[in-house]
Amino acid sequence: MIDGAMLVGNEVRQSASRFQSSDPSTGTALTPDFSSAGEAEVAEACALAAAAAPVYAATDPESRAAFLEAIANEIEAIGDDLIARAVQESGLPRGRIEGERGRTTGQLRLFAKVVRQGDWLDVTIDPAMPDRAPLPRPDLRRMNIAVGPVAVFGASNFPLAFSVAGGDTASALAAGCPVVVKGHPAHPGTGELVARAIQRAVAACNLPAGTFSYLPGETNALGAALVSDPRIKAVGFTGSRGGGLALMKIAAARKEPIPVYAEMSSINPVILMPAALAARGQALAEGYVQSLTMGAGQFCTNPGLVLAIGGPDLDAFAAAAGTALSSSAPATMLSPSIHQSFEQGVAALAGHDAVTTIARGLPQTGANQAVGALFQTDAEQFLADAALGHEVFGSSSVIVRCSDMDQLIDVIAHLEGQLTATLQLDDGDIADAQRLLPVLADRVGRILANGWPTGVEVAHAMVHGGPFPATSDGRTTSVGTLAMQRFLRPVAFQNLPVGLLPSALSDDNSWGVARRIDGVREASPQ
Amino acid sequence: MIDGAMLVGNEVRQSASRFQSSDPSTGTALTPDFSSAGEAEVAEACALAAAAAPVYAATDPESRAAFLEAIANEIEAIGDDLIARAVQESGLPRGRIEGERGRTTGQLRLFAKVVRQGDWLDVTIDPAMPDRAPLPRPDLRRMNIAVGPVAVFGASNFPLAFSVAGGDTASALAAGCPVVVKGHPAHPGTGELVARAIQRAVAACNLPAGTFSYLPGETNALGAALVSDPRIKAVGFTGSRGGGLALMKIAAARKEPIPVYAEMSSINPVILMPAALAARGQALAEGYVQSLTMGAGQFCTNPGLVLAIGGPDLDAFAAAAGTALSSSAPATMLSPSIHQSFEQGVAALAGHDAVTTIARGLPQTGANQAVGALFQTDAEQFLADAALGHEVFGSSSVIVRCSDMDQLIDVIAHLEGQLTATLQLDDGDIADAQRLLPVLADRVGRILANGWPTGVEVAHAMVHGGPFPATSDGRTTSVGTLAMQRFLRPVAFQNLPVGLLPSALSDDNSWGVARRIDGVREASPQ
Repeated sequence: MIDGAMLVGNEVRQSASRFQSSDPSTGTALTPDFSSAGEAEVAEACALAAAAAPVYAATDPESRAAFLEAIANEIEAIGDDLIARAVQESGLPRGRIEGERGRTTGQLRLFAKVVRQGDWLDVTIDPAMPDRAPLPRPDLRRMNIAVGPVAVFGASNFPLAFSVAGGDTASALAAGCPVVVKGHPAHPGTGELVARAIQRAVAACNLPAGTFSYLPGETNALGAALVSDPRIKAVGFTGSRGGGLALMKIAAARKEPIPVYAEMSSINPVILMPAALAARGQALAEGYVQSLTMGAGQFCTNPGLVLAIGGPDLDAFAAAAGTALSSSAPATMLSPSIHQSFEQGVAALAGHDAVTTIARGLPQTGANQAVGALFQTDAEQFLADAALGHEVFGSSSVIVRCSDMDQLIDVIAHLEGQLTATLQLDDGDIADAQRLLPVLADRVGRILANGWPTGVEVAHAMVHGGPFPATSDGRTTSVGTLAMQRFLRPVAFQNLPVGLLPSALSDDNSWGVARRIDGVREASPQ
Repeated sequence: MIDGAMLVGNEVRQSASRFQSSDPSTGTALTPDFSSAGEAEVAEACALAAAAAPVYAATDPESRAAFLEAIANEIEAIGDDLIARAVQESGLPRGRIEGERGRTTGQLRLFAKVVRQGDWLDVTIDPAMPDRAPLPRPDLRRMNIAVGPVAVFGASNFPLAFSVAGGDTASALAAGCPVVVKGHPAHPGTGELVARAIQRAVAACNLPAGTFSYLPGETNALGAALVSDPRIKAVGFTGSRGGGLALMKIAAARKEPIPVYAEMSSINPVILMPAALAARGQALAEGYVQSLTMGAGQFCTNPGLVLAIGGPDLDAFAAAAGTALSSSAPATMLSPSIHQSFEQGVAALAGHDAVTTIARGLPQTGANQAVGALFQTDAEQFLADAALGHEVFGSSSVIVRCSDMDQLIDVIAHLEGQLTATLQLDDGDIADAQRLLPVLADRVGRILANGWPTGVEVAHAMVHGGPFPATSDGRTTSVGTLAMQRFLRPVAFQNLPVGLLPSALSDDNSWGVARRIDGVREASPQ
């Protein structure tokens, strides 16, 4: 079922240029080898996507929803081959990959439901007022339409849920946009299996061939060519800050600049409020280390920073966290390059004059394993060196001791944009937390209380986004149903004759969607 | 009431560096002279805005709406001084300026109504599911919050409705963002009068001083300093393509890139469909010339391009339009520099090998007057030279003869992004128009039938936006209530204790807003 192909529309191609993936747990190369897509395939895939765009954008909600469900079914139909390959390529445990498959198909089915309901169209009608003085008001109707072909760059840390058929692809397809995926070179076999599932769904649903293409490859030039192609109208990316910034630069320099939705970098501060720290420091330390080391710490929402006021309670917390981390098992990272970056980041912190190492996890027993790392410093040092606030992707975290609540607030105000912030608090902390809340809200996309930032619910109310550099566009989310909005834009229709009005805007509301009429919105259909 | 001041928060300042405005109808300088704000004032205004931001963002809907209404009242209270000064500085007729004042205050009051209603908060609640297997679902609540201080660059062509208290300022203030206005040097007296009105409203409503500042000036350095300031979080701009592109570049190069909402350039194609052209070519020609010459053609939505299939009907239309234009009066343009650009653009078209001049309007009788210009070319020539599709701001327009409907569609598909497209059509044109519609929707923000693009309704369903270079961000509008969304971003709150939840998200819905619960939205409050 895997032969290293590129999928250009409904075609299956091979390139003479090849690359290999490896099993990170052993470092050994995996078969088969894979096509490295080049500029020719980018141009062809984008031309097909542009041709497909108006046809696919015009699909009615039922057809589009059925397509999303067909993708989910095709992914499930791959069966254990998908799980086995993803485990092999990612080094992630089987249970995690099985859960991730459920999240991937569940996400597609949730978008199908949302597409059918139609709230995303934001249908807004201001009826004509022919007798208004001094000028009559025209009939004005507005709806959202698809922006056009979208380039998706899969993430290495979610080989299913944020890769070929992951959140970016699902939300772009739900919005009515053809998708060209640049396959991640760390899991090309997993990518190809999923891409072929989507290709089958496109055929089964009689959609235009260009609705989906899959271009595996390992060069930056491939990604650059894709983002540069004038037919691409938006980009979804999850990965490193350097990668995201490079794509933003390319997109901004185009003749027609386009939006890049890059989810890049976050250290996800956890704030231990005084009463909570005094009451349950030991339990907090254990929960923290569990969140920090889960999946080798390879989550965008990994808790890489702890802020608290110095004193005996924080000392006890740090000691307990150090004890917990000391007995944490090493865990295989996603790829040799990610492991190498982790090692470099940890070494830089360990060697920093202002940083003390509290503990390391148990030593490596195999290739590419992350050994947990826990550091501490104080607020003045942290504020003095921006490097201490940079993400070390993996199970590395820094505890920052603040002198008082004012200094803690000052540290938050100086943080770069973050995906999340977590408050550990008890009743006695509410007054202080009320002071913190607006400062936090200014810096992050999601604020949580008495939990841990890892684990991102795919829901209507989720925001997996945040001010730069957490993402390139803090007005958006890449997880949850709001993610569709990234690939839509509003168009107004003025005084259109009945025969020309799009179905969503027709007087008889033939799609049965909730409308805003004269500024007053109807309830959603159930 | 005007002394050339800068308004930095609640202070009134003078700068030693001065500039003057002139009456474009005579070319004579006006008194007084005006302060040229510099980097020191930018830094101070932005620091004040940053300090005001959390306080102003936390205002409840009623307080914020009352502030918007207070601004409208203060503007009306200026009385005829405002009208007289705006007429003098813009060269626009008194009736037009009076109408524009009504639009400006009406817009502020419409935003007040929208702020009170609360739909803009997009309150979305996914209640906890503590018993869900395998993992419980947390309580997740999402709402929109203000992005922070906004820099606004007023437009010269709407000295009231798109300047100091215009659409950008009104929508940013409605969203909860402090505003720093860079005053347009073509109407500094008008700008100061309105800025002082806003300053009085800030004081009357007991809002923080930094909620609004006004920095007049005529240098590009002033605008660059404002967009570069790290405390500014978004930019609203209406003006030239060159100006917009320069601000986009500055914003993208910041340490923290920020969105620029620049409304720049559009030639607003009007498509004369065959049946309509045959049935009512004479009336269309008259309507077209009226739209083209209104306000000296100084509208973003001025019809600068006509597309139709060549033949006797189009010949008759062109002749009738030429006749109408020949007797059109010259009209004072907004400034000497705008007049000079118009003259250059018209001269370039008149001298172009592939372009024929159909007619010019009546000759100049005073300074800085636009003399209407009507040109024609054919589709092949138009497609061969992109310069023929560039905006000439003012009453200049090009008729493009296409060989058939396929070529006409091809021309549309090759157009740059536009604010509007207009279809003149009769019943016999519907089938062809159905083919055109998706191609048009891909290129523009608003499609109108059997009207003219000039005249933009401030409404819920309005889109005054469009793909680049009509605007820098085709997902947005700068006119209408949707404009608020540009200055908002979503934040999610997970498992927050009752004492920390923002009022908009409270269980008792104390603000009485429509909510989306488990994906199902309630009807708006009436």
